[in-house]
Amino acid sequence: MNILIIGAAGMVGRKLTAALVASGTLSGKPIEAISLVDVIEPDVPEANGINITTRAVDIADPSVARTLIDNRPDMIFHLAAIVSGEAELDFDKGYAINLDGTRYLFEAIRHAGMEKPYCPRFVFTSSIAVFGAPFPDKIGDEFFQTPRTSYGTQKAIGELLLADYSRRGFLDGVGIRLPTVCIRPGKPNKAASGFFSSILREPLVGQEAVLPVPEDSRHWHASPRAAVGFLIHAAQMDTAGLGTRRSLNMPGLSATVGEQIDALRRVAGEEAVALIKREPDPMVAGMVEGWAKDFDASRAVSLGFKAETSFDEIIAIHIEDELGGEVPK
Amino acid sequence: MNILIIGAAGMVGRKLTAALVASGTLSGKPIEAISLVDVIEPDVPEANGINITTRAVDIADPSVARTLIDNRPDMIFHLAAIVSGEAELDFDKGYAINLDGTRYLFEAIRHAGMEKPYCPRFVFTSSIAVFGAPFPDKIGDEFFQTPRTSYGTQKAIGELLLADYSRRGFLDGVGIRLPTVCIRPGKPNKAASGFFSSILREPLVGQEAVLPVPEDSRHWHASPRAAVGFLIHAAQMDTAGLGTRRSLNMPGLSATVGEQIDALRRVAGEEAVALIKREPDPMVAGMVEGWAKDFDASRAVSLGFKAETSFDEIIAIHIEDELGGEVPK
Repeated sequence: MNILIIGAAGMVGRKLTAALVASGTLSGKPIEAISLVDVIEPDVPEANGINITTRAVDIADPSVARTLIDNRPDMIFHLAAIVSGEAELDFDKGYAINLDGTRYLFEAIRHAGMEKPYCPRFVFTSSIAVFGAPFPDKIGDEFFQTPRTSYGTQKAIGELLLADYSRRGFLDGVGIRLPTVCIRPGKPNKAASGFFSSILREPLVGQEAVLPVPEDSRHWHASPRAAVGFLIHAAQMDTAGLGTRRSLNMPGLSATVGEQIDALRRVAGEEAVALIKREPDPMVAGMVEGWAKDFDASRAVSLGFKAETSFDEIIAIHIEDELGGEVPK
Repeated sequence: MNILIIGAAGMVGRKLTAALVASGTLSGKPIEAISLVDVIEPDVPEANGINITTRAVDIADPSVARTLIDNRPDMIFHLAAIVSGEAELDFDKGYAINLDGTRYLFEAIRHAGMEKPYCPRFVFTSSIAVFGAPFPDKIGDEFFQTPRTSYGTQKAIGELLLADYSRRGFLDGVGIRLPTVCIRPGKPNKAASGFFSSILREPLVGQEAVLPVPEDSRHWHASPRAAVGFLIHAAQMDTAGLGTRRSLNMPGLSATVGEQIDALRRVAGEEAVALIKREPDPMVAGMVEGWAKDFDASRAVSLGFKAETSFDEIIAIHIEDELGGEVPK
């Protein structure tokens, strides 16, 4: 099993790499090689006997995709993207990476298959940003796609191409629309959604965090561990059940900020909760209010994808995976 | 008013040109110039005092779009496309014309707007092929897009780009999903849907036609005159009512082949109906069975788009527009 991970330097890419290396197998076959690719050179993890190579490339360069496919990886994880805010600010860059970069990969695979038969599994990380308000209470896989950002437009186009290239037999695609990943490890960042993680992550280690929205704000979450689980399941699943509809809402947990805080209280007590400073920010609150709050992921669940069902579980995973198994005293 | 029509040599393009020339105005303004563009040089119609120019170009050539936008047309009709069957047979050509050609136009408009403000109305002919089976009984604008052809994929991507470029203020887009145009004038063609027109068109002039499907086969139709009406209404309508959802199912008539034949009988009698030869073709019947049969176009209707409500009307329009007003004896 020869694996290519594009966007390997990001948080999910690093956790995916670690999980694959730790397992040593995928789809019941030993992993021989993993190629880690990103716009910055990815770190080389412990190899566990696997031939791990790294490359820093720009997938918007039309000559790059071919070189990534040269050794005909059996499995391709495409996680690379210009994120929503940046794609909105820099129109050219968003389209260059998120649309052209993705299409160059698909085309390189198709052309490789013209020389001799080739049809790799291609796991594409899409986004719930393919959907645009106004929303139903629960957004199903069959809700139509009217993205309200250029990022969402680019992801929706990626899904359409993934489906067409799969239908044609050029690749075997699975598109997964990830929930917001929570608790995101690391430092606070400037993303508007960052507080969903920081109001748990910071208090768990005795630090203050800012809550800019009301406690009844509802959002859609899954842990980093669940996100890696989705990717690995998408790589291993039987795609016959997908038919021509190749992209799926991943399961997640719809929870209010108040429910997040209640879970924090159960795990770390009132003194942790007291570290959350309420500083209402109408701009952030307005953005969050416009985001989707709940999804129907029954199709993905029936196809074997699994996520957390409570914030207690999400916090416990963070403590296990990031804090060595216990809340610091 | 300076108008650009891309795909002007086709049947709908020629009828649109004739209607614009006959009217002499659009959106209440006199038409000064019409530029007719297609892959073959379009015919020059009677000019009626309008400056009509023609050009044969390949819109898949990246250098072409800029030259089409040079004189900053106020109104752009983009009708050019590689049709479904050909886009399925020639993957590269379909993507080159239907996706890249369309995107080059959008990009040329955006870049023109960077030099000095420019935001033309852009009428994009999409297709009901953006939808893929399994279908509900009536397909609404909010049905999700899972095209089952490369053509449908390319049109769905065009719709997404049209919406994003409109949201950004680069152009003022309206996407219209046309029903099957019936009665299509001219000679029988090899399109699988051709019989819907030929079973009426040929008997009306005393010639035989072949019916390859059962009489209970249902399909979605609008006359060529209605199609031109949709384009002109899309050009003139107030787009404020579209919001970010820029593409619309056009109204049409859902009718069975039996209903078509009943209308023919009322207009031209039993001897015309007797010219329809039943030659069941399981392949054609299977294709037609997989196509959408009925649509909910209430959004378009509420925005002022109009179509025929009976096949008697569709046949009467064909007799008026193509047969000089009467059925030949």
